[in-house]
Amino acid sequence: MALNDESLQELKAELLDELVKDKPSKNLLSERLAEVRSADIGEVLEELIEEDEELPAALAILDVLSSERAANVLGYLPGESQLEVVGELSDTQVLKLLEEMGSDERVDLFNLLDEDRREALLRRMAHQEREDLKRLASYQEGTAGAIMTSDYVAIASGMTVSQALMRVRQTAPDAETVYQLYILDSDGELIGTMSLRQLIVARPGAFVDDIMIKDVISTAVDEEQEEVARIVARYDLLALPVIDSDGRLVGIVTHDDAMDVAESEATEDFHKGMSIGQLEDGVSRVRLWSLYRKRVTWLVLLVFANLFSGAGIAYFEDIIAAQVALVFFLPLLIGSGGNAGAQAATLMVRGMATGDIGVKDWSKMLGRELLVAGSLGLTMAIAVTPIGIFRGGEAVAMVVALSMVTIVLFGSLIGMCLPFVLERFKVDPATASAPLVTTLIDATGVLIYFTIATAILSQL
Amino acid sequence: MALNDESLQELKAELLDELVKDKPSKNLLSERLAEVRSADIGEVLEELIEEDEELPAALAILDVLSSERAANVLGYLPGESQLEVVGELSDTQVLKLLEEMGSDERVDLFNLLDEDRREALLRRMAHQEREDLKRLASYQEGTAGAIMTSDYVAIASGMTVSQALMRVRQTAPDAETVYQLYILDSDGELIGTMSLRQLIVARPGAFVDDIMIKDVISTAVDEEQEEVARIVARYDLLALPVIDSDGRLVGIVTHDDAMDVAESEATEDFHKGMSIGQLEDGVSRVRLWSLYRKRVTWLVLLVFANLFSGAGIAYFEDIIAAQVALVFFLPLLIGSGGNAGAQAATLMVRGMATGDIGVKDWSKMLGRELLVAGSLGLTMAIAVTPIGIFRGGEAVAMVVALSMVTIVLFGSLIGMCLPFVLERFKVDPATASAPLVTTLIDATGVLIYFTIATAILSQL
Repeated sequence: MALNDESLQELKAELLDELVKDKPSKNLLSERLAEVRSADIGEVLEELIEEDEELPAALAILDVLSSERAANVLGYLPGESQLEVVGELSDTQVLKLLEEMGSDERVDLFNLLDEDRREALLRRMAHQEREDLKRLASYQEGTAGAIMTSDYVAIASGMTVSQALMRVRQTAPDAETVYQLYILDSDGELIGTMSLRQLIVARPGAFVDDIMIKDVISTAVDEEQEEVARIVARYDLLALPVIDSDGRLVGIVTHDDAMDVAESEATEDFHKGMSIGQLEDGVSRVRLWSLYRKRVTWLVLLVFANLFSGAGIAYFEDIIAAQVALVFFLPLLIGSGGNAGAQAATLMVRGMATGDIGVKDWSKMLGRELLVAGSLGLTMAIAVTPIGIFRGGEAVAMVVALSMVTIVLFGSLIGMCLPFVLERFKVDPATASAPLVTTLIDATGVLIYFTIATAILSQL
Repeated sequence: MALNDESLQELKAELLDELVKDKPSKNLLSERLAEVRSADIGEVLEELIEEDEELPAALAILDVLSSERAANVLGYLPGESQLEVVGELSDTQVLKLLEEMGSDERVDLFNLLDEDRREALLRRMAHQEREDLKRLASYQEGTAGAIMTSDYVAIASGMTVSQALMRVRQTAPDAETVYQLYILDSDGELIGTMSLRQLIVARPGAFVDDIMIKDVISTAVDEEQEEVARIVARYDLLALPVIDSDGRLVGIVTHDDAMDVAESEATEDFHKGMSIGQLEDGVSRVRLWSLYRKRVTWLVLLVFANLFSGAGIAYFEDIIAAQVALVFFLPLLIGSGGNAGAQAATLMVRGMATGDIGVKDWSKMLGRELLVAGSLGLTMAIAVTPIGIFRGGEAVAMVVALSMVTIVLFGSLIGMCLPFVLERFKVDPATASAPLVTTLIDATGVLIYFTIATAILSQL
């Protein structure tokens, strides 16, 4: 069964005790660890590394694992924790671990090391390995190249099914996945793909070229990782091949790495949606200073943006002094506009993130939003009218109802359009966060409300 | 290559022309469709079905596909569109399609049909098929049982590697995945698992019982689908076996279905985060009336919640009339509190959704939030002090700065605690939406601001 939080805590306590208490034989610990899954050991290690004083315990656990297992466990740790572990190991130990890691994890860790360490490690690697690592490390973060692995199974064009099957058996220990095979011509160009399922049901003497699917879904090495995750999800792929500009296969992105990307993108969008910068780790673990920094920038910027609402109010000070009852409805009106606008922005941002809406859909979405927002505004105006009459009389009720329709309509349009505008200017639409939308609408709302109030009340 | 939006539109236009213009031979259309991937045909059909008058064109396209292909394409359509198609088909045609569908898609479609149709179809099915369908249809929506498929490869305990490989070859055409195999004892109990990779590198004469992994990660049939998706992602599984209370294997959830769940859960959380009800379809396609309904409920509720802020203001009308300058800072202060609170709520909600935070972490997170929110409040108070002095003099500046610290601190605590409280009462924490948090904080903020103002300004 999968471990839940509680059983993980028990495991952690058990491992710590086995280790710290009367330092028993390594064998005992090693036997116990053999029964635990790598992902779960990783979870325990992550907590131990966080609690700084337990780092030696984490190292002792890694020490009794085989290099292969240790590399596997390390792959489940966030970069920062990997770095803490590697900082305590000798170059020889690190080289052994790097060797056992998948090529995508290897390069991720490598990119985190400082330059001196990288140079030292590179000097001690074999030529082929060094070139491979350098090449993978050169791809820009956030692209297909940066998340792909080069441990795929390549089949040479012209092979028979039984030859291909033999090749799969040989490559199985090192390949990230053996379930999707890639057929390359003599130039390394990707000319077809087939699944292991197709291979094992095929006649042994048949040629792979006759069975393979020639129209391969692939992606460019510089494609954005979000788009990569979308393609994998849309076509239900086990792995997506990545090709360079000459059509040569350079790597594959596996479904689990694509799922990780999709999840971290969703989290990033959530945080952006509430004006929080990108966190390097889960909120329960990230350093407090980092959390402060990621939140403060937008909050202070929004303080200044909010001054526009204040300035609007200052401009209308006379009518407020004459009719203090108007202030009663201020939070209600700007709040409603902000809420409607934030809804509209969220629908657009998420629709764009999942690929449901593109920039070309702008005019269609505008028409829809006008209709829906108009109806919403009317409904809310009706809801608020009795309260307006009760607190300020009929004239104030009219001002409030009219302002409600106008503010909700404007708010929704601002919320709907902002993501498109940002996308147009190549800014991530998720930056059209609720706080930003709300603040913009607050200022607009103040102007609309008091302008309508001045117009109507001055006629009485 | 994967199709982008533009090439999909071209494909749609081409298909429509081939069909509508001078009704050419079916062969031509059929040949063209053979080159298009099922996911892409599905995308085109979805758009055609939406535009009501093009439904016949969609049916004509499905008509030239083989039953197997048609079932495959149908699997890419949302339930509503599937229903429109099936409404136009005879029982015989529907039965053929159902037969070709994966068991998970079959039951999804079946559950959407009205009772008469279901009865009619059940009567014409073979006994075994009928029982299987009824059993799958009985699992509650949102659980592992509802998203699993019964098309897995089961291997009997005691088989040799070569017998197992033979079994895989036989089952390959029908199984959802052949890459993870499940070993059952004579009672159907799940006693082990192995990957096809392990199987093909193993010695043909070895027994599967000696190679299989005995500690299988599995889930219960009534486990929530979010948890299922989390387990699949955490252990990087290709498929997660689902067992009943007796430990018998009843189905598997494949990685692509888990990824779909994760994506739709994220979208749902996004929408809840902005007080939008659950949409049945993407925002660009859902009916306007439905969009209105999903947005209006919360907006109107929040109108009434906002009245508390108004009531607070009414209570302090005297001090406002005496010091209208105080109103200038009102949107700023309650806006800042709302923003900080929404940030805190978002961090908690997303942390809980990804499994990073559990209810047990409450006290730890409270301590962290107190520190961070205190620092945020101080920073913002410092930022706003000069403006306070400039607009209202030193006394007002003091009121504003003090209120800022207090409101940001309170706002953050409300935002942080609400998701935990909701989770405690078994309400989805994502309901602790930014609008709700903002509205709660608005009312608190008004009280704090004017209480501090009364206390300080009345002493002068």
